[in-house]
Amino acid sequence: VTETFTLAIDAMGGDNAPEMVLDGLELAAERHPNARFLVVGDQAVLAPQLAGHRRAKAVCTIRHAAETISNDMKAAAAVRIRQSSMRLAIDAVAAGEASGVVSAGNTGALLALSKIVLKSLPGIDRPAMAGIAPSARGDVVMLDLGANVQCDPRNLVEFAIMGDAFARTVLGLTAPTIGLLNVGVEEMKGDDTVREAAEILRASHIGPRFHGFVEGNDITAGTTDVVVTDGFTGNVALKTGEGALKLISDLLRHVFTRSLSAKIAYLIARPGLDRLREWLDPRRYNGAVMVGLNGVVVKSHGGTDAKGFAHAVDVAMDMVVHRFNEHIREDLARIAVDKRSGGDKNDGDRRLATA
Amino acid sequence: VTETFTLAIDAMGGDNAPEMVLDGLELAAERHPNARFLVVGDQAVLAPQLAGHRRAKAVCTIRHAAETISNDMKAAAAVRIRQSSMRLAIDAVAAGEASGVVSAGNTGALLALSKIVLKSLPGIDRPAMAGIAPSARGDVVMLDLGANVQCDPRNLVEFAIMGDAFARTVLGLTAPTIGLLNVGVEEMKGDDTVREAAEILRASHIGPRFHGFVEGNDITAGTTDVVVTDGFTGNVALKTGEGALKLISDLLRHVFTRSLSAKIAYLIARPGLDRLREWLDPRRYNGAVMVGLNGVVVKSHGGTDAKGFAHAVDVAMDMVVHRFNEHIREDLARIAVDKRSGGDKNDGDRRLATA
Repeated sequence: VTETFTLAIDAMGGDNAPEMVLDGLELAAERHPNARFLVVGDQAVLAPQLAGHRRAKAVCTIRHAAETISNDMKAAAAVRIRQSSMRLAIDAVAAGEASGVVSAGNTGALLALSKIVLKSLPGIDRPAMAGIAPSARGDVVMLDLGANVQCDPRNLVEFAIMGDAFARTVLGLTAPTIGLLNVGVEEMKGDDTVREAAEILRASHIGPRFHGFVEGNDITAGTTDVVVTDGFTGNVALKTGEGALKLISDLLRHVFTRSLSAKIAYLIARPGLDRLREWLDPRRYNGAVMVGLNGVVVKSHGGTDAKGFAHAVDVAMDMVVHRFNEHIREDLARIAVDKRSGGDKNDGDRRLATA
Repeated sequence: VTETFTLAIDAMGGDNAPEMVLDGLELAAERHPNARFLVVGDQAVLAPQLAGHRRAKAVCTIRHAAETISNDMKAAAAVRIRQSSMRLAIDAVAAGEASGVVSAGNTGALLALSKIVLKSLPGIDRPAMAGIAPSARGDVVMLDLGANVQCDPRNLVEFAIMGDAFARTVLGLTAPTIGLLNVGVEEMKGDDTVREAAEILRASHIGPRFHGFVEGNDITAGTTDVVVTDGFTGNVALKTGEGALKLISDLLRHVFTRSLSAKIAYLIARPGLDRLREWLDPRRYNGAVMVGLNGVVVKSHGGTDAKGFAHAVDVAMDMVVHRFNEHIREDLARIAVDKRSGGDKNDGDRRLATA
């Protein structure tokens, strides 16, 4: 008998929820025979719709939630709603009914609720948002993508450790390399925060795989497997890169539709162009992970479609099946041991011992 | 008689200097009949090479400089060299012999020397680096691109005022719109720095054209004509966008060369693809301007070629001919008047009166 894993699904989050979510689960059910879904939302809406999804209905259980958190609601207001689909989905993880949660809803609310309900892993001061971006040398893990707009050196070091575990778990790498985003690669570049973080990382157990500073163009060049930065810079970099890819995609579409001969050229080159488009498809990178929490939390883009949502479920399943959080716990334990042998006895410090 | 303008040229800066520089001036001399060049560098090297440049030699004067600032030299060391080609070129601007300077050399040294020799414009606390990026709706001005890794709200406000003048001068816009880069467009997003800067901008004379917060993807979408951010984020965003464009260009080259049919498709679609490539050509965006100084200072990419260097000269000529610094002076005077009418009498404050 294969082990099964249950994910809680916020069925009401996202621009086209719950249809988009259920369509996504239909795809996910086919891809992950060992997945079970606890679908949280308005029972009266979900029940008839789920009946039309042959594969999904066999592996889904509906849990009623009377309320929905809208996209424009502030996090402070959202956390006060006790019966929202998002809250009840996260509650299911806290209660051990599910190993992880996937939501395409309000990002700020998801982060705030996850922190309140699931709490940070011991030793992690600030959970972060991690995601995957395309590069010339394969997929690259980036974090933080926006959970923490201001960071101190220790936060960046925690992000590096979590990014390392992420690359091993989701990308399947045995020895990922790690870069710290900066305005230049020389040691004296940047501000005190990145310079101090670099110093700590060099001395840590991931020191041998710490590449040092990388620049914006190193992300898509694939210079390192993991790119670490604060949530402000990471969010801007991610969206700038997406924007640049969208610009050139739109321009290419224009080039290949503006004349009959161009349309013919497109038909001839189509296999290669389609593969390229598929590889760069934003849906393939959908699913940012809130790392550093007691439980797997995956945020799907709100405007995605069923294929994108199914990819966010893929990411959550990777994290759960490969026991991402246990990897992080082991790394943190290792650092705690380093710390003791280093003579520092301040066990009350929740922050990283290496800092 | 047409008025002529003289630019000082650091002939020894850049990976392939001075050949690349002189080749660039040959192109620039054709494009700008009203330009004269004071070419600063090793006389023994420059004189014979310049003799081979028919158009350039007619409008160039060589000034000997015994030393060159290398790319890996720290700014603190570079400013101590009195006879470097970069220093003497900047000195020529300070002495009124030239209206501006163009260098493809060490960025940190150029910024440091420009600040020391030319000084900031009265009312400007921190000069910034501005550049132009492609967008779906035309060219966009971005600043700061790396001169100031840490910024306070008043710095960002100064950048907005200088970006506005830049868009009017170089892009020729009559009423540019201005956006402040952030992790979201809602008012409560980001940190105190961007929120305070937004508040000041809304109340300033450019308030009606201040669009509010923009995100990374708004840069290439062309949501605003000017995008303002700190030097850390701006540098990362610029390089991330360049990296994304390079990735897709490389992949497209691969798609169109991998098979005979793909090569045929390329030949058919070539006019459109070539136009696209030309439009996105990084050389077309070469030439970052150090704004906020008493004099025009343009930094060319060190790895560019003659065409790219000539574009940096185009930018410098635009700034000089359209009297960029006079525009900024007028704007700053306007703010000072606002300040007085507002009752604030602290004239000793070098920082922006609106802050």
